[in-house]
Amino acid sequence: MTFTPADSGFEQRVRTSFAKQQVMRTIGAGLVSVAPGEVVIDLPFRDDLTQQHGYLHAAIVTAIVDSACGFAAYSLMPLDAAVLTIEYKVNFLAPAVGTRFIAHGRVMKAGRTINVTTGDVIAETSKGTKPIATMMATVMTVTDRPISG
Amino acid sequence: MTFTPADSGFEQRVRTSFAKQQVMRTIGAGLVSVAPGEVVIDLPFRDDLTQQHGYLHAAIVTAIVDSACGFAAYSLMPLDAAVLTIEYKVNFLAPAVGTRFIAHGRVMKAGRTINVTTGDVIAETSKGTKPIATMMATVMTVTDRPISG
Amino acid sequence: MTFTPADSGFEQRVRTSFAKQQVMRTIGAGLVSVAPGEVVIDLPFRDDLTQQHGYLHAAIVTAIVDSACGFAAYSLMPLDAAVLTIEYKVNFLAPAVGTRFIAHGRVMKAGRTINVTTGDVIAETSKGTKPIATMMATVMTVTDRPISG
Amino acid sequence: MTFTPADSGFEQRVRTSFAKQQVMRTIGAGLVSVAPGEVVIDLPFRDDLTQQHGYLHAAIVTAIVDSACGFAAYSLMPLDAAVLTIEYKVNFLAPAVGTRFIAHGRVMKAGRTINVTTGDVIAETSKGTKPIATMMATVMTVTDRPISG
Repeated sequence: MTFTPADSGFEQRVRTSFAKQQVMRTIGAGLVSVAPGEVVIDLPFRDDLTQQHGYLHAAIVTAIVDSACGFAAYSLMPLDAAVLTIEYKVNFLAPAVGTRFIAHGRVMKAGRTINVTTGDVIAETSKGTKPIATMMATVMTVTDRPISG
Repeated sequence: MTFTPADSGFEQRVRTSFAKQQVMRTIGAGLVSVAPGEVVIDLPFRDDLTQQHGYLHAAIVTAIVDSACGFAAYSLMPLDAAVLTIEYKVNFLAPAVGTRFIAHGRVMKAGRTINVTTGDVIAETSKGTKPIATMMATVMTVTDRPISG
Repeated sequence: MTFTPADSGFEQRVRTSFAKQQVMRTIGAGLVSVAPGEVVIDLPFRDDLTQQHGYLHAAIVTAIVDSACGFAAYSLMPLDAAVLTIEYKVNFLAPAVGTRFIAHGRVMKAGRTINVTTGDVIAETSKGTKPIATMMATVMTVTDRPISG
Repeated sequence: MTFTPADSGFEQRVRTSFAKQQVMRTIGAGLVSVAPGEVVIDLPFRDDLTQQHGYLHAAIVTAIVDSACGFAAYSLMPLDAAVLTIEYKVNFLAPAVGTRFIAHGRVMKAGRTINVTTGDVIAETSKGTKPIATMMATVMTVTDRPISG
């Protein structure tokens, strides 16, 4: 599927917003690529992000694919819009074992208000790559008000 | 709903497993309480866990309620069992603004293999508490094999 | 949770809309009760709605709880609003065995645009009642445009 | 993704099981094709399956994609296995307007016990086809016990 972004400066806008997500820096995630409706984020394995079996914690897997999906939607939004994640669902396909994790987020349907995105996470291991999670996320375009608590 | 845990040492077993989740320490989460089929985890707000608007990142909200749900299921499992999160869905009800976040995880249905859990997260603010997220998670009881990648 | 409906004629509005859902008549579902933010729908078992094991098909279980959740949200909406289901997730807790099925839909969060609802389905059997499914649904309030294909 | 079915008679096994789903006959759904890990089901539009705006009810859209996903998983299972839907999530992309609806179900991950499937539904209209829904479903392989209520 090909999308035409509403704002031609979409890549810089996504990169600026990603840089403001302090949690991405905290966990060591990086923005690999930004295309219209598609964003890739990666994360090297780190011991301090693990669950009880020593694998990457499911919520950290979720963190990178959630941000990939949110920014994929954001890449298509108008200049003055903010992105709000309404909900997501993740299926975990295999334990998060690997040296590096790569999350792809893609827009499936870009609506006026509601955007549906899908994402997946693959793990890089010494034996190759392996899919470990898949996400479906609903993301809202907010243009008429601040996102506030 | 009242559950009878299969292992009377369930609380210590949950506390030991929680202590092994290095990511919980990394983000500053604490285990508040453990009851049969119900676990509470809290997290003080921290700037380095935020998204682009300065609120707690959705995936960190997810992290504490995911662990609360997983450990709620784990509390009812036999001594030799491991817990595996198959999937979860989260709806975000309000931006994660607050000074402290409290996640409750509860078992809704404890099956032989499949457990269904629900969880919610509330934010403590200067004005009181506010629900910010709700989760439904499917958790598997694994007894006959190691959880491996 | 107590809600104040935006339209005092909410019950009649829900009943009129339910009557227009031809599929409810086709499967034999009935509107049991309508309260602000809470709707109950029931369905007697019928052989022609079953799956391969002779139980009620999961999608029919979904049908009644989906409508219960949608109408629960609709009950709180303004007079001129339409309701649009954005997405839902259902966990099936037990096979749908019984003589009658009762779906409760409740609003968890009523927003300006986005409403989060939860629902559950219980089966009546000769031995009592049993929960068989639980739903989380995101429902949109549409006020400024027709719902069209 | 290519799958090798455990039972070479998978197509007949799926067709036999589909024929036992009385609800499929009731709503007029047909089994279009069966391949290893992939099943297609269609449904002509019918007035008696509509919601309040005259479109196909979301739960009927769900019915065909749920069955497509379940049978996609079933196609890969051993001869003596039964299929059990644990949970699913559906996002609705557009109102279900059309003359015919086509659901594709595909296996994403075939596990020993847990299978993850995805599905989508497109509507045929006079102007062409349009995606209207997407599903993620978790399906269990049950081999050691009857599926009972």
